[in-house]
Amino acid sequence: MSLTGWKIQAQKGRDILHNSIPKQWLLSADRLPPATQKNVTDFPRQSGLLSENELAITEMSATGLVAEMGHGRLKAEEVVVAFLKRAVLGHQLLNFATEFMADEAIARAKKLDEYYQQTRKLVGPLHGVPISVKEHIGFKNRTCNTGYVAWVDKVTTEDALLLQLLAKAGAVFHVRTNQPQSLMHLCCSNNITGTTFNPHNRTLTPGGSSGGEGASMGFRCAPLGIGTDIGGSIRCPAAFCGAYGFRPSAMRNPLAGIKVAAAGQENIHGVVGPMASCSLEDLELFQKVVLDQEPWDVETSLMPVPWKMVTPTRNITVAIMWDDGCVRPHPPITRALKHAREKLIAAGLKVVDWEPYKHKHGWEIISALYYPDAAALQRQLLHESGEPARPLTEWAFSYSQPTALSHQETWVLQEKRDIYRDEYNALLKRRGVDFILSPTHPAAAAVLGESQYWNYTAIWNVLDLPAAVFPSGLSVDPVLDALLAQDRRYQPRNEADEREWRKYPSPERYEGAPVALQIAGRRFKDEETLAAARVVEEIVRGRLGSRL
Amino acid sequence: MSLTGWKIQAQKGRDILHNSIPKQWLLSADRLPPATQKNVTDFPRQSGLLSENELAITEMSATGLVAEMGHGRLKAEEVVVAFLKRAVLGHQLLNFATEFMADEAIARAKKLDEYYQQTRKLVGPLHGVPISVKEHIGFKNRTCNTGYVAWVDKVTTEDALLLQLLAKAGAVFHVRTNQPQSLMHLCCSNNITGTTFNPHNRTLTPGGSSGGEGASMGFRCAPLGIGTDIGGSIRCPAAFCGAYGFRPSAMRNPLAGIKVAAAGQENIHGVVGPMASCSLEDLELFQKVVLDQEPWDVETSLMPVPWKMVTPTRNITVAIMWDDGCVRPHPPITRALKHAREKLIAAGLKVVDWEPYKHKHGWEIISALYYPDAAALQRQLLHESGEPARPLTEWAFSYSQPTALSHQETWVLQEKRDIYRDEYNALLKRRGVDFILSPTHPAAAAVLGESQYWNYTAIWNVLDLPAAVFPSGLSVDPVLDALLAQDRRYQPRNEADEREWRKYPSPERYEGAPVALQIAGRRFKDEETLAAARVVEEIVRGRLGSRL
Repeated sequence: MSLTGWKIQAQKGRDILHNSIPKQWLLSADRLPPATQKNVTDFPRQSGLLSENELAITEMSATGLVAEMGHGRLKAEEVVVAFLKRAVLGHQLLNFATEFMADEAIARAKKLDEYYQQTRKLVGPLHGVPISVKEHIGFKNRTCNTGYVAWVDKVTTEDALLLQLLAKAGAVFHVRTNQPQSLMHLCCSNNITGTTFNPHNRTLTPGGSSGGEGASMGFRCAPLGIGTDIGGSIRCPAAFCGAYGFRPSAMRNPLAGIKVAAAGQENIHGVVGPMASCSLEDLELFQKVVLDQEPWDVETSLMPVPWKMVTPTRNITVAIMWDDGCVRPHPPITRALKHAREKLIAAGLKVVDWEPYKHKHGWEIISALYYPDAAALQRQLLHESGEPARPLTEWAFSYSQPTALSHQETWVLQEKRDIYRDEYNALLKRRGVDFILSPTHPAAAAVLGESQYWNYTAIWNVLDLPAAVFPSGLSVDPVLDALLAQDRRYQPRNEADEREWRKYPSPERYEGAPVALQIAGRRFKDEETLAAARVVEEIVRGRLGSRL
Repeated sequence: MSLTGWKIQAQKGRDILHNSIPKQWLLSADRLPPATQKNVTDFPRQSGLLSENELAITEMSATGLVAEMGHGRLKAEEVVVAFLKRAVLGHQLLNFATEFMADEAIARAKKLDEYYQQTRKLVGPLHGVPISVKEHIGFKNRTCNTGYVAWVDKVTTEDALLLQLLAKAGAVFHVRTNQPQSLMHLCCSNNITGTTFNPHNRTLTPGGSSGGEGASMGFRCAPLGIGTDIGGSIRCPAAFCGAYGFRPSAMRNPLAGIKVAAAGQENIHGVVGPMASCSLEDLELFQKVVLDQEPWDVETSLMPVPWKMVTPTRNITVAIMWDDGCVRPHPPITRALKHAREKLIAAGLKVVDWEPYKHKHGWEIISALYYPDAAALQRQLLHESGEPARPLTEWAFSYSQPTALSHQETWVLQEKRDIYRDEYNALLKRRGVDFILSPTHPAAAAVLGESQYWNYTAIWNVLDLPAAVFPSGLSVDPVLDALLAQDRRYQPRNEADEREWRKYPSPERYEGAPVALQIAGRRFKDEETLAAARVVEEIVRGRLGSRL
């Protein structure tokens, strides 16, 4: 059967992927777990593909890896090979990659090793750290499709500025990762390389739009990854996959060379930020490496604000938002928040409840500003290739008004947005709250195709508050998270509330899903927010070896 | 004759003004200079209205006044009375005010004096400094019309945030000042309070849109004033009136409570900034007072960047832009730049020529972005009252496309704007240039109604570079600035060049106009730019008593 029309183009994208996979590490189908096996996180150990040493390497943080390489106890080459092997395995199970860059990554790692051998010094603070990269962050001389068939053979002429900065610090890029069509799903499915799955349960989505990154982090195909976020696209996949993610304030990290449909759109600023497989410290490391290089002196739209080191402290007030007043979180989320509350109080933090302030209003503003042109530009891009819109693409488009807003309507919304930000900030100060601990999504991890409610994450986008996501240490439990009689009698407050609540007939539907927590800080307090996330995570998870 | 329609409304605005004038200081018509007298800057001394002490007070800087008050050698009350008297005189000659606030200002000054008497301390770093304020910066319980008849009786409910911060530092607001219809003239004329004149030559405009402020500074009705600038509206009146003005980087000074037609518009950010009658140091004082109060913690859209103190240094490279490649400056401007060049070289600064980089391109971007809606909102505001558009309003509207841009077209322009900023910044670095010294306008000061060319100032708006204006110490000279034979043979490069060159048949048309210089710094180098302006001014004007 020969392909026609857009399918020919889509096949080009798949060819790029397939040709890039390092074949020597592919397992034959009979050595893979059955398609019905939901949780595949243990498979790297069972597969026999990775040595004990390689398994150990892939379970380390970026910070830990750099320390080992700095002592000469690990080589960059063995590190990247270990992660490449795990990534190939992960791709076979989760379909998370869009392109492997194995040869270049290994060559680069060898050069780093040579440099170290000659100088006994690291190239920089990310020396030899493998980083997976969301596809729409452009690499020189490689295609960049941003999830659109129309762009499948568009080649980038220069590395994204962010990649340049990370490379200078010693990073090694080994794999590019999947994203949904239009970038506007909290899922991960497109017409080129298809659908990515959640490593904890393959009937669940890894989240999106940085869903390939979510899977990469959850399966530990890299210690660090790069996602982008305009409504939750870093935090949602981090949460769904049991990983870490950080949405910095807008206009801090450099965006040059990241390809989006509506370049120049600034009604709502998208951000790029780090994801990590096992450590909040790695998110800080990433931010410090990027901002220490003063990207605002090249990309002059950025805020000229250096990254400052903040000492974590327990002298903070954390408010818990149990519910955003619109959509009720599922039982595992509420359980995780209760668990966190107990631990935090026991640890002596000041913990209060957070009464949400006009979150529906916030959603009305941001959802209208996503597509002031009624998504005309995005529809045009679909039309260009003839590819059909995926269901969640239509869903996102439906946020917009049926016809384009006038400039005046847009300005009114932007004024409302700024006023809402100021009001929220004043409220935080008035209530004496430093950080808000909240759900990331109504579900621990949505079933494939079902992530429709954005506003546990998008609220911090419209308010432009820094927010970090980390695992609570809990996962969905068939007993503890069963619906109680009063849960069954729950009267939803609105259509969305009903829709989301119905998605939880029982915990079994979300078997094995990790439960994340999200912590948001005050305006521009990026450093303080990550420091607070570390404090809260250590307390909630009772981790040993704390530096705090 | 009874007024009808919009004229009734406009009369309300004039009534507010007339009722507010402190009548005890008005001079009868026979004591005023004849209407034909162009230069009225000496009249305060000749009028007999101000005592020697009052004349001396009104010739001091804000910095100097605060020092005197700190030593108990001046009282806030005598200071504000002196400036009020001068302002009443200035208004009779120049029509620069929209509303006096004499009683409140005097009452406030008395309170400051009481505080000082009780504590021997100043309330803050602006203790007792009278500040004139452009009308569209809102005062609680006062009307705010922004130059539109439609808004002439709209009352403001809260002081603009900037006014709150300045008041906390001890400032005294005594007079509100005129602005053009639509705020988009580099002149100062509206259908409510009419036309403001230039104190150095009343056939010339004080510039705009902060034209009332220009006249206030040029006539010394206040040591400090507040203007706003989206295309030159602080710098042009400062230049035309022989005063000082500073356009800070966008999103540093607080904008909340400043009333504009298109609130929420952020295609091109307007800024608010200081003007001063006699000192660059006062501009720094203003900036420091505002940013030391961390306005970003209230108005959260602002950049969280504190004001830092920068030590002026002669170890800088200044590039002189003789011509922007589009419109040739008039002979007095070129003479002032030559004069500056000689002095700067003699003082040991590194001075080079600046080859302008795509200024026409910059103008095409910013002029299209001023009115992406084809000025529909502004036209609607005129239509609301029925007031006719002033000629320079139509002129500004004509910058826009005949029909509204689509959102996509706007985004493309915004992307071009950001790329242009990055390119310009890279060029400054590549050429090793710290600051660009340039004209502020083709003319020293435009004839009333003639200020049509914006791009010697608007270029720094589209690039969002900080820029300060200060007097060169020279003024238009009938002999030195006469057209030479080669000037008469000048072949204009385009329509605008021809139009502007024709406006200079001879120096006499600009008799007495001061010639200003403008200095722009690199992106975000606000502090360095003001420090460099001080160095350059001191050298160019050969001032004594330098602290450098």
